Amino acid sequence: MASAETAIRPTRAENFSEWYLEVIKAADLAESSTVRGCMVIKPWGYALWEHVQRVLDGMFKATGHVNAYFPLFIPLSLLEKEAAHVEGFAKECAVVTHHRLEARDGKLVPVGELEEPLVVRPTSETIIGESFARWVQSYRDLPLLINQWANVVRWEMRTRMFLRTAEFLWQEGHTAHATEQEAIDETMQMLGIYARFAEEWMALPVVQGEKTASERFPGAVRTYCIEAMMQDRKALQAGTSHFLGQNFARASGIQFQDEKGALTHAWTTSWGLSTRMIGAMIMTHGDDDGMVCPPRLAPQQVVIIPVIQKPEVREQVLAWCAELKRELEAQSYAGAPVRVHLDARDVQGAKKSWEWIKKGAPIRLEVGPKDIEKGAVFMGRRDRKPREKQSVPRGELVAGVGALLQEIQDALLRRARAVRAEHTRPIDTKDEFYAYFTPPATVRPNDPTPIHGGFALAHFSGDPAVEARIKEDLGVTVRCIPLEPGEPGTCPFTGQPSPKRVVWAKSY
Amino acid sequence: MASAETAIRPTRAENFSEWYLEVIKAADLAESSTVRGCMVIKPWGYALWEHVQRVLDGMFKATGHVNAYFPLFIPLSLLEKEAAHVEGFAKECAVVTHHRLEARDGKLVPVGELEEPLVVRPTSETIIGESFARWVQSYRDLPLLINQWANVVRWEMRTRMFLRTAEFLWQEGHTAHATEQEAIDETMQMLGIYARFAEEWMALPVVQGEKTASERFPGAVRTYCIEAMMQDRKALQAGTSHFLGQNFARASGIQFQDEKGALTHAWTTSWGLSTRMIGAMIMTHGDDDGMVCPPRLAPQQVVIIPVIQKPEVREQVLAWCAELKRELEAQSYAGAPVRVHLDARDVQGAKKSWEWIKKGAPIRLEVGPKDIEKGAVFMGRRDRKPREKQSVPRGELVAGVGALLQEIQDALLRRARAVRAEHTRPIDTKDEFYAYFTPPATVRPNDPTPIHGGFALAHFSGDPAVEARIKEDLGVTVRCIPLEPGEPGTCPFTGQPSPKRVVWAKSY
Repeated sequence: MASAETAIRPTRAENFSEWYLEVIKAADLAESSTVRGCMVIKPWGYALWEHVQRVLDGMFKATGHVNAYFPLFIPLSLLEKEAAHVEGFAKECAVVTHHRLEARDGKLVPVGELEEPLVVRPTSETIIGESFARWVQSYRDLPLLINQWANVVRWEMRTRMFLRTAEFLWQEGHTAHATEQEAIDETMQMLGIYARFAEEWMALPVVQGEKTASERFPGAVRTYCIEAMMQDRKALQAGTSHFLGQNFARASGIQFQDEKGALTHAWTTSWGLSTRMIGAMIMTHGDDDGMVCPPRLAPQQVVIIPVIQKPEVREQVLAWCAELKRELEAQSYAGAPVRVHLDARDVQGAKKSWEWIKKGAPIRLEVGPKDIEKGAVFMGRRDRKPREKQSVPRGELVAGVGALLQEIQDALLRRARAVRAEHTRPIDTKDEFYAYFTPPATVRPNDPTPIHGGFALAHFSGDPAVEARIKEDLGVTVRCIPLEPGEPGTCPFTGQPSPKRVVWAKSY
Repeated sequence: MASAETAIRPTRAENFSEWYLEVIKAADLAESSTVRGCMVIKPWGYALWEHVQRVLDGMFKATGHVNAYFPLFIPLSLLEKEAAHVEGFAKECAVVTHHRLEARDGKLVPVGELEEPLVVRPTSETIIGESFARWVQSYRDLPLLINQWANVVRWEMRTRMFLRTAEFLWQEGHTAHATEQEAIDETMQMLGIYARFAEEWMALPVVQGEKTASERFPGAVRTYCIEAMMQDRKALQAGTSHFLGQNFARASGIQFQDEKGALTHAWTTSWGLSTRMIGAMIMTHGDDDGMVCPPRLAPQQVVIIPVIQKPEVREQVLAWCAELKRELEAQSYAGAPVRVHLDARDVQGAKKSWEWIKKGAPIRLEVGPKDIEKGAVFMGRRDRKPREKQSVPRGELVAGVGALLQEIQDALLRRARAVRAEHTRPIDTKDEFYAYFTPPATVRPNDPTPIHGGFALAHFSGDPAVEARIKEDLGVTVRCIPLEPGEPGTCPFTGQPSPKRVVWAKSY
């Protein structure tokens, strides 16, 4: 299909950043609000998040975690306790200083200054640590495996819908353990859950790895992450899991009596995943016609579009479609009934069809009187081109809908893996490395983020000065030191020995 | 059972308010935090809320509503637009004035003053109205049926866990319609859903009715509510549904072109229910041994307690219990698999049993070697006395667990209905009314909230001055004008005609 015919302008190739915002608009996922840096998550976007929540929450509970809820506000004095934490995180945040508004001359004025200002949580280690210190007394109280679904606020200067907003939604897990090994195991288990969720549910191939010291969560002993490649070849951090050692336990006073009666600090972890994942889905699967929802998380997996040209057939077509909906809903996919929407609005069929293409519904079924006569539906798959539709006998479609959804899910993952493989390159010299990340001047003149190499797998001796230099020169950072085994080699920047190749990339 | 043997001190009769706080502690539902007026909802309490969410969310979706998410912050100028709204609601609220913290001499100091202060949402009519104004253009965009699950903040001076906290969790529905009648129907439909949820799921009998003008949501044309009676005979408002007419649409500019092309303001509604419901469950069903969870919302419906006196039987008993758990989980109740917890902790059986009594698990099963020999379990129901246990053959228990849970659910509702009936009285004279709400000086000398009458069903001519006077004299208000039909009569306070009896009570 020629670029002129695509539903989204600019296309990905023309201007990826603009394309991203246009897809959010066309798919009705979210919009900016009048509140600086805050967005409104619209129903289609929020439904994606609800499915993320439902699946992850199930995974957390299956591994013994329970949910709880902690205050939105953190007193300043509590933040001060954790110097390291404050340095890294609490700099740009929303500060509540007054508790009352009064009308004066038709204006509202803040009055009632608080004795101690309150910070809107940017993350909850401090406030949760305070509770944990009360809850944990003996080794019998451990492990403590808590998760919280919440909103957090970080006063970001440059925001971008879903990827970086002042307020965002996330889950934050916080656990305390009696031994170092158990806390490390938990950290790795949760990283594994994120990776499995990303690949199996979001169709998002990820690299699991450890952050270098410069990208570590302040106060953590080790930070692990999953990193995914977007279609503009930038990396997106899609979930983090921190082994906090005894640092936070010491700051918060989380101590317990062990089996021998000795008082010890607990070993803690924290791990989080946010609405940023919706941005990752858009930038991984979206195309020049809009959003492409991975079937397992799609708010609606099948959309039935009645094609009614003459009013007199309306009732018959709608009744047939309603029955088809019921039959499809009796099928199950990925452990739940198939989600089917019958779009009965009084709007032209082709217009509706394009709306659902832009929203990324995995399967579209167009049904008109001729299809009914044949006992068939006209089926379009969102992983194929919009006009590539085929007639499928109704019975065959209903019986095979679960398999078809999985076929689309698999196709998306395969495609994302191919994109990543194509743009991942082992690099052994500094020159090649610099060339890989320096886009040719002639490519995509309109795009403020011109195309460059993707993931460079290069050896690295671990020198933070090298990282800082490369970040300054190219805007490229070590995304992670992969968990999977690798061969030792020589760092192309220092000539020093390197234990294994790491992933370098530009990132969101 | 004598009062001295109860698990909770003071008892309800000794001091209801203290008893309430002790139950929250004993059942591990929540605790205060260092943040003024904010509480920590602990796992057992939060799990109750999760079940409330799951069930209500299903009811909302079944009636065509979708979820979305709007910003936490409201710019001051947006609140100023709605004078009526501001007067009523936005007085005590958290105001964000700075966006940065800087460390100075080891202290954190708020810097970066915002040009326009932001209010942490006390409710979201204004911020959602702003979006609705963009989303609604034509009658084709209506109805707009949106719900949000969120945290809100109201700077309450006197807080009480679950009932009135600075931050609380709730759902707020916001809808826009093309006609007045449709908006009224929506308002009543949601009130009905709340009432059905309260009675069927929370075992909480409620009166559906309309508020008088003095208790109306500021800006609403009519406010409806469900009112429940707690065991101290006070009323608790357990959900509200507002018909907003065109007031909010006018303030927010929500206009649409009707079928004839004319521009009209939409008709809107809003409705909400909060974590206060957990307080309602405690005060309706709780007894002098602690919390009593209604089976349909209980985080764990059945708790299996292995009774292991000799270490050598441990494995056998645990294996038998694990198998019993699997069998029970294969049963379903209220549309979901039965929730079963096996408490395998190395703690004395009787101690565990009391913990689960205090937490309010509906069914406790004690299993020791002798029970296994008999192929039976020793069963305790939370709606009966703690020591009233009986041996039940395993197979019978498993097959009948759903019916048994419903029997307990029904018993709780019946008991709550009986308490309400006992303390509801039609009153026809002012003297009797005043006497009903004036507790005798000799009763419950330790209780700061001495016992008084419950619901007075008295005629009322509607004079706000009468309401104000009675509130001042007795702390009693009109809880609602019941929806159900009633006979006209004479107002005992004014001698004026009254269309029907209304519900008067003290309240939370």
